[in-house]
Amino acid sequence: MADWLAALDRRAELRAKAGLTRTLRPRSAGDAVVDLAGNDYLGLSTHPDVTAAAVAAVRAYGLGATGSRLVRGSTDAHHALEDDLADWLGTDRALVFSSGYLANLGAVRALVQPRTLLVSDAHNHASLIDGCRISGAETVVTPHADVAAVRAALAAAPGRPAVVVTESVFSVDGDLAPLAELHAVTRGHGALLLVDDAHALGVTGPGGAGGVAAAGLAGEPDVIVTATLSKALGGAGGVVAGPAEFVRHLVETGRTFIFDTALPPAVAAGVRAAVGLARAGDDLRAELAERAGLAVRRLRAAGLTVSTPDAAVVSITAPGPETATTWAADCRDRGVAVGCFRPPSTPDSRSRLRLTLSAGVPRADFERALEVIVECAP
Amino acid sequence: MADWLAALDRRAELRAKAGLTRTLRPRSAGDAVVDLAGNDYLGLSTHPDVTAAAVAAVRAYGLGATGSRLVRGSTDAHHALEDDLADWLGTDRALVFSSGYLANLGAVRALVQPRTLLVSDAHNHASLIDGCRISGAETVVTPHADVAAVRAALAAAPGRPAVVVTESVFSVDGDLAPLAELHAVTRGHGALLLVDDAHALGVTGPGGAGGVAAAGLAGEPDVIVTATLSKALGGAGGVVAGPAEFVRHLVETGRTFIFDTALPPAVAAGVRAAVGLARAGDDLRAELAERAGLAVRRLRAAGLTVSTPDAAVVSITAPGPETATTWAADCRDRGVAVGCFRPPSTPDSRSRLRLTLSAGVPRADFERALEVIVECAP
Repeated sequence: MADWLAALDRRAELRAKAGLTRTLRPRSAGDAVVDLAGNDYLGLSTHPDVTAAAVAAVRAYGLGATGSRLVRGSTDAHHALEDDLADWLGTDRALVFSSGYLANLGAVRALVQPRTLLVSDAHNHASLIDGCRISGAETVVTPHADVAAVRAALAAAPGRPAVVVTESVFSVDGDLAPLAELHAVTRGHGALLLVDDAHALGVTGPGGAGGVAAAGLAGEPDVIVTATLSKALGGAGGVVAGPAEFVRHLVETGRTFIFDTALPPAVAAGVRAAVGLARAGDDLRAELAERAGLAVRRLRAAGLTVSTPDAAVVSITAPGPETATTWAADCRDRGVAVGCFRPPSTPDSRSRLRLTLSAGVPRADFERALEVIVECAP
Repeated sequence: MADWLAALDRRAELRAKAGLTRTLRPRSAGDAVVDLAGNDYLGLSTHPDVTAAAVAAVRAYGLGATGSRLVRGSTDAHHALEDDLADWLGTDRALVFSSGYLANLGAVRALVQPRTLLVSDAHNHASLIDGCRISGAETVVTPHADVAAVRAALAAAPGRPAVVVTESVFSVDGDLAPLAELHAVTRGHGALLLVDDAHALGVTGPGGAGGVAAAGLAGEPDVIVTATLSKALGGAGGVVAGPAEFVRHLVETGRTFIFDTALPPAVAAGVRAAVGLARAGDDLRAELAERAGLAVRRLRAAGLTVSTPDAAVVSITAPGPETATTWAADCRDRGVAVGCFRPPSTPDSRSRLRLTLSAGVPRADFERALEVIVECAP
């Protein structure tokens, strides 16, 4: 067993040599850092209506849900949230999970029958990849946002049930999947389309209803939507939305739904308040779009290679993993938190800084943060 | 795609015919039901110290963690909780996940190297089974609590790395795994022992430190402990505890840790208050033990087949799945919530009612509930 621990140490040393050490840095409440790394896109995690709803529910229900959803974990707060989410997303029904990760594991697995082919975008999130793995289904990974490759993968599996799995706004570069084109292909084949709307919900689409709604696909019976409740909605948990038959199937057979403690009622109540604010938040979305444009202009003017953001994620190419790490650390030392993506956590060989914009960051702080990023650039 | 939904409907009808329909029933805050189905063993989910800590943290940090642990999701509240959990469990370090399910997926996968053999108890929880599946490692399922079978499985794999995976108090029948014997076997083979202490933490062991501590195995370098923070601790989330090298390995490589939004800071703060109460809760544990004895005597006196509880879970054999469902429904109609386990959710062919005791239920209500269960028995 000493061998075991020594082997773990050797692997940690190899990661350290490759510049891949990861360190937990706790933050204190109300720290002075300008946050361009979190996912609180609309600033709702600290909105007084959200925190008041959560506080009231802690007092009414207690802290935890005390059981799984099918035992004692379902409260009025969960069901009210699910009704509001379904209404917002334009689907028959919505089902809340304790995390987006478990929602994705459950959704992918529940879509798989014998002989199902999964077609998964190369930039998909770890939870979607793990969903494909745990389903046991044959999985073809197609190049990023490549509709022709998806069409070819489906054409090569005539007569087989198939599911195309994609994000809407991708977490790595913030680009939008060609959802309408993908749906035309899946429908033509009789396949299903699963879309993880985590980075789009609240940020894009009519009333912030996300990328699926923006593509005109809300409520289509062959489209399943998943999302987190922890990004623009400022809380925690995940959701799967779609036809009532599918949600029933998840309730009755989904292992990551059935055998998991429910989301705390206070989180459900707080997120429900956030849904109301997000739906009415066109002003927040306009502010985000303006900041995205400003970031791109300022960073490109400094000679940096910057993605064209479709939502609130801006990706800046870094020369390599070590320079990315140093760049992000220098920004942090100057009070600006930015995301840092390096291989093997990136789907290609590129290292990046990732900026996630938040309407909750004061405008002057945001503009100052852009200058810090430029001044720290390698 | 109409075919798809029709196929889901046909499968739902087959489940309905087999008596396996599952229905979500939301509860209101402060409902009058006597809860012998939830997992709030010590009644801490509504303890004023727990809810006050959560409320204060919602106000200080906001609702959500706003990011993954390695980005912006780690707060002082998470780290303080992890320090307290490690101290309580007697391990080097502890790492908090957003759910027990994701903690188990992460822990099992992180223990697997090339050629690792997993040896998994037949009664293990879905999250451990899914951990074995997603790891890709060869997995041998041994009969429940069968030390000889575990020894034989290890002996059949000489020279291979191996991990024995078990619960301490099993969720189905509430019985305790032979942890000391299992550890003697794993150590003799040079294998590791992973113990899910979810139903024991706070309920058994010195200062409520759980089944691993009760077996004298706290801090052993070849033992990994997982648990939920949603049962006796009244909150939500999960934990993996063990040697510092292993926790570092999880932080740097564990996909269900790295790519998941952190537990809300308010939940971490509330659970931390619960840890303090649980450690000082010998009176609550004495009350639970007394109630377990009372339940067994009363139910056996009525001619029912009842497990001998090692913690706070009491299992009552039901004649079949339909009678189990009717029995539980009749209890519910009379204001008593009990768990109902039927195949295929049971690891054998038996149906059961499951009572989970809680020190938070008033004693008179508990005694009345036992009478209701007896009166509703088939």
